[in-house]
Amino acid sequence: MHDFQFYVQPGEVHDRRAVLKGDERDHCCRVLRKRVGDVIILFDGNGNQYEAEISSINKDVVECLICQQRPKLNRIVPEIHLGICLVKNAAFDEVLTTSSALGVHAIYPLATQHSVKQHVNPERMRKIVLNSVKQSGNGYLPEVAELTGLADWLKIVKNFKIKLVAEKDESLSLSALVPEPCETDRIAALIGPEGGLSRDELDLCQAAGFLVINLFPYRLRTELATTVMISQLYQYYTQTGGIK
Amino acid sequence: MHDFQFYVQPGEVHDRRAVLKGDERDHCCRVLRKRVGDVIILFDGNGNQYEAEISSINKDVVECLICQQRPKLNRIVPEIHLGICLVKNAAFDEVLTTSSALGVHAIYPLATQHSVKQHVNPERMRKIVLNSVKQSGNGYLPEVAELTGLADWLKIVKNFKIKLVAEKDESLSLSALVPEPCETDRIAALIGPEGGLSRDELDLCQAAGFLVINLFPYRLRTELATTVMISQLYQYYTQTGGIK
Repeated sequence: MHDFQFYVQPGEVHDRRAVLKGDERDHCCRVLRKRVGDVIILFDGNGNQYEAEISSINKDVVECLICQQRPKLNRIVPEIHLGICLVKNAAFDEVLTTSSALGVHAIYPLATQHSVKQHVNPERMRKIVLNSVKQSGNGYLPEVAELTGLADWLKIVKNFKIKLVAEKDESLSLSALVPEPCETDRIAALIGPEGGLSRDELDLCQAAGFLVINLFPYRLRTELATTVMISQLYQYYTQTGGIK
Repeated sequence: MHDFQFYVQPGEVHDRRAVLKGDERDHCCRVLRKRVGDVIILFDGNGNQYEAEISSINKDVVECLICQQRPKLNRIVPEIHLGICLVKNAAFDEVLTTSSALGVHAIYPLATQHSVKQHVNPERMRKIVLNSVKQSGNGYLPEVAELTGLADWLKIVKNFKIKLVAEKDESLSLSALVPEPCETDRIAALIGPEGGLSRDELDLCQAAGFLVINLFPYRLRTELATTVMISQLYQYYTQTGGIK
C-alpha cells in the first residue's frame, strides 16, 4: 500500500518547514503515535508531496522539517465536475468518498425538486473528502462547493463543452457521443436524486446543452450510478484519447 | 422506482400457482404486510416476472395465483464471471451487493495467499445477492460459488476467450485490448485482495491466458475496483460492439 499522508494547506509549507494543525495534528501524534524524529509524508491537496521529519510536537501543532519534495503527481484527466443531487446522508457520504477516491475535480451538492433533504454541512463534506483522498493517495483535493440550486449550477458549468446527465429511461449511451475536436477536457456530470429529476429540470438541463445519457440497463442507486459514470468517463476518455 | 419483487424458485411456479417460502414469505406478509387479494410481483431469478394475486397466507407459505407473465427480461451482456479474492466482511458484502446490482453472471469467492480470511458463508452470500437483485430489479440472480482456490478457478474459466486481472502497477488499460473477432461474450474478471496477488499468483494467471490490466491511475479499494471494472467492461463492450 502507499504511505499514509498528512494534509498541510498549500500556504503552510514555508522555507522547508510545515505545520500540522487540528485533526491532522491529532491523527499524526494521537492516533498514529508519531514522535519527534519520525519521517512522515505530507501532501498539500494540490499534487505536491513531501517527506518530512517531525521536529516538535505540542498541544496545538506538529512542526516538521521538509527532507525532500517528491515529484509532483499528475492530475487525472478528464476533469470531472460532478453535480450530485442531495440524497440521504449515508448515500451522500459514499458518493463523496468514492468520487474523491476516483479523482473528480469538483463536487457540487445540488438542491432539486425531488431531493430528500435540502441542506448540507460543507465542513463535514470536506472532512469526508479529505479522508478519502488521504487513503487513496491521489494527492489532489477536489473542490467542495456549498449547496447550489440546479439552475445556478447550470450557469457555473455553462462554458463546458461536455455536459452529461444520467437518466435511466434514456437510450443514448456514452458511446453514442461522437468524438470531434474540442479544446477542453472538462466535463460536467450530473447525477439525479433517487426519485429522478423532474421533467422541468431535465428540460432545463437540455436547454443548457446537457446530453441525457443512459449509464446502464438497470436503475442504479445514486452511489453506484456516480461510480459507474466516473468509471465510464475515464474509460471512454482513455479509449478515444479524449472525449472531444 | 420499479415495483418491489419477491423471489420464487423457478420450480415453484406451476399451473399458474406460485408459493413464497421462508424469508420471502416473511418479507411479503410480515414486513410489507401484504394481504390476501393483494397483487404482487414475483421473479424467478432467471428473467421471468409475474404479476400474482395472493390467494392464501399461512404460517409457512404465501400462495399466489399468477395473473399475468411479463415479457422475459433481457440479460445484460457481456457475461461477466467475477473472481473476488476474499476481503473483510463489510467490503466483501459491498462487492456482492454492487456486482449483483450490476448484473454479473457468476461470483466466485477466491482464496489467495494474501487474503485476510479463508472462509465464506455461501448461504449468507446468497441472501445478500438476492436482496441486491430484488432492489435493482434486474431479474437475474448471479450464480454464487463456494470458496474456490485460485488455481481451481483458473481451470473453471479455462475456455473463456477474455480473461482479465486488475493490478495497479501494470500499464495496460482495458482500451489497449484490440478488438478482433471472437465468438464469446463471456469474460472472466479477477479482482485481487487488498494486499495484491503474489508474484507467483500473477504468473499463474498470465500462464492461464489472463491479461493484466490497469483499471485506474490510483490504487482502489476492492469494492471500488470491482465496480470500476464492471462499469468499464460494460462501457467498452457497448462502445466497441463487443470485446472481441
